[in-house]
Amino acid sequence: MAKTTPLVTLLTDFGHSDPYVAAMKGVILSVCPRAQVVDLSHDVPAHDVLAGGFVLAEAAPYFPLETVHVVVVDPGVGTDRKILAARIGGQVCLFPDNGVITFLAGRLPLEQLVTVTNTQYVGAPGTVSRTFHGRDIFAPVAGRIANGLGLGELGPQASSYQLLDLPAPGAGERRIRGQVIYVDRFGNAVSNIPRAMVVETFGDLAIPQVWAKDACVGGLKGAYGFVAEGELLSLFNSMNLVEIAANQAPAAERLGLTFGSPVHLLPPETRPGQ
Amino acid sequence: MAKTTPLVTLLTDFGHSDPYVAAMKGVILSVCPRAQVVDLSHDVPAHDVLAGGFVLAEAAPYFPLETVHVVVVDPGVGTDRKILAARIGGQVCLFPDNGVITFLAGRLPLEQLVTVTNTQYVGAPGTVSRTFHGRDIFAPVAGRIANGLGLGELGPQASSYQLLDLPAPGAGERRIRGQVIYVDRFGNAVSNIPRAMVVETFGDLAIPQVWAKDACVGGLKGAYGFVAEGELLSLFNSMNLVEIAANQAPAAERLGLTFGSPVHLLPPETRPGQ
Amino acid sequence: MAKTTPLVTLLTDFGHSDPYVAAMKGVILSVCPRAQVVDLSHDVPAHDVLAGGFVLAEAAPYFPLETVHVVVVDPGVGTDRKILAARIGGQVCLFPDNGVITFLAGRLPLEQLVTVTNTQYVGAPGTVSRTFHGRDIFAPVAGRIANGLGLGELGPQASSYQLLDLPAPGAGERRIRGQVIYVDRFGNAVSNIPRAMVVETFGDLAIPQVWAKDACVGGLKGAYGFVAEGELLSLFNSMNLVEIAANQAPAAERLGLTFGSPVHLLPPETRPGQ
Repeated sequence: MAKTTPLVTLLTDFGHSDPYVAAMKGVILSVCPRAQVVDLSHDVPAHDVLAGGFVLAEAAPYFPLETVHVVVVDPGVGTDRKILAARIGGQVCLFPDNGVITFLAGRLPLEQLVTVTNTQYVGAPGTVSRTFHGRDIFAPVAGRIANGLGLGELGPQASSYQLLDLPAPGAGERRIRGQVIYVDRFGNAVSNIPRAMVVETFGDLAIPQVWAKDACVGGLKGAYGFVAEGELLSLFNSMNLVEIAANQAPAAERLGLTFGSPVHLLPPETRPGQ
Repeated sequence: MAKTTPLVTLLTDFGHSDPYVAAMKGVILSVCPRAQVVDLSHDVPAHDVLAGGFVLAEAAPYFPLETVHVVVVDPGVGTDRKILAARIGGQVCLFPDNGVITFLAGRLPLEQLVTVTNTQYVGAPGTVSRTFHGRDIFAPVAGRIANGLGLGELGPQASSYQLLDLPAPGAGERRIRGQVIYVDRFGNAVSNIPRAMVVETFGDLAIPQVWAKDACVGGLKGAYGFVAEGELLSLFNSMNLVEIAANQAPAAERLGLTFGSPVHLLPPETRPGQ
Repeated sequence: MAKTTPLVTLLTDFGHSDPYVAAMKGVILSVCPRAQVVDLSHDVPAHDVLAGGFVLAEAAPYFPLETVHVVVVDPGVGTDRKILAARIGGQVCLFPDNGVITFLAGRLPLEQLVTVTNTQYVGAPGTVSRTFHGRDIFAPVAGRIANGLGLGELGPQASSYQLLDLPAPGAGERRIRGQVIYVDRFGNAVSNIPRAMVVETFGDLAIPQVWAKDACVGGLKGAYGFVAEGELLSLFNSMNLVEIAANQAPAAERLGLTFGSPVHLLPPETRPGQ
């Protein structure tokens, strides 16, 4: 049954200055006037499937079940890349099959997966632009899902989706090696090292010293305000991942951290490479 | 009759950091609490009436009929420029009479046009600021239209509106000369050359070679992904206009294209100026 | 009684590229699916409590009574700074006790103030992250207020809140000295000098000449368009404060005006410092 106020979220790399996001909202609201459309983000760096996937995974799980999340970070638009629709942890996602689902699929269980092919909903060949599937396919399909259309109506069941080839953290005897996977607006550098791996490797969270590239930022702290203003620190962030930060200052910029920069957790008086 | 959830969109050059957009939303929702307010864009370059008009024309037509589109790209605020309300292709627009309606008026039929003067709705002289008509006139009037007020209540019928003096594309025997009219976030340069003119001039779309300034970007392709990553191309974009682009790269920056840059479509082995 | 469509606004320094704002919206809508969530701004400069407070004061008063305004400009997150909830001029605010309420509290009457401590609503110790109270405390509490929960349920009554130590304008015999307190997107520099002080000091608004740092921008004008394009001017802005501006040009950049820059109103043929 359709909800009274269905929620549709949009995640794109379209930015805020062009008409593209608004055109998508217009189409969604034309198909489903009862919907409330919410922005996940439109400032994903252009064509950055990995960053888009990270934002999706950290935002979508907090929405009410049955929210429809539309992801258009889609450098392959107009080629033969597939469009998929998934029910995953109770959330519904409509996305290009380019790996953008990687982080979310690692976090929530996949419940249903279909390839969107039904021309009754996506438009017959020749009626759809080849450069703006966001407006011409994703938006009308999302509006119909918001209206209560089952995913199974959109096309045949799919058996798999593309995954990004992500770096994985590794743990040895009292040492962990990971990488920076995201840098946020504040210059906080999020690593791929989860709290559980730190607990398992060191037992006592007070032991490990955190290194970002060649700089030691000390032991894990409780919050940004636990060090003086401008000082570097590390902590478990709101995603329970090790994060390199500074109190009210951009740590990533100061230390030159970008995607892939090495992060080490080591016992005191040990250096990376030893 | 008033709609259950009236839609009001906002298009401004106010940016996202100041309180101006939110103040307008507060006023609209105070007048019409049932409304859903949607952003068209607030990142129109400051005072850029032409860019604002382009965004309006490419977004507004996709909204449900009777949506109220409020346009505040208004460098003449506080002077004697008029405020107009129009019904155009079933969409309702409230806008300063400075030419911002040019592109939309070229695309959809004008059905009603009034000058907004009724002080019952816009406030008596002395009660309205002279620097922020967005909050003090546009927003309350938009809220009342969303509540069901007829445009005819806002003031007298108007017979004309300002139009921007836009460059027009020209076609000769197997050659077309146009201009860049918009550069988007991805560095795609949109020209004013419509598909219909290309079909009429060349017959076969496989014939023309596309030149942007002094660079030939080849024939018209089907989608961005039809050339290698980083390579230049041209195609009909989602507005059916000739666009100069590059696959996952900013073509406008590479070729130095800005508003007004010449675009030529020519037969093979012909150069612009020949 | 709960409203049919409760309004919740968000004001943060989170920017638009990260998942933080969307995660908060997801939590609010999970707790109160009927809510409409509206952005005040997310582009407050990182950790800038003063700028955030200014935006709050210039936007919140325009919303319908009982709107819930959630303010997360919160450099002290995770430390022992308090979270307060206030009813102020009929608006409801949820904010960290760091002075961000200063401007709004100077504009609207305080009606109720409580410290948010009730773990039934904010989560028991250990279940809440120490880096993202926006998602883990502010959002669920805002959703419950939107659902109709009284502020008195959130914790004990509070007797005071932090105030920022702001510069105050001073008036002498036919002279006023103030400061720039905000620079907006257009490069308009807003001072802390209210219209009432100018009226009281000079009687006739045609008398005073306005100086920004060492530059005289002339007498107070009626609107931006009253001087030639690019020319400097001063006027009372939409907040009834003296503002230094230029017609379609960024005055603050040209004159080097930032927070704290001196602004003088003087009789003709008098200079600052005389």
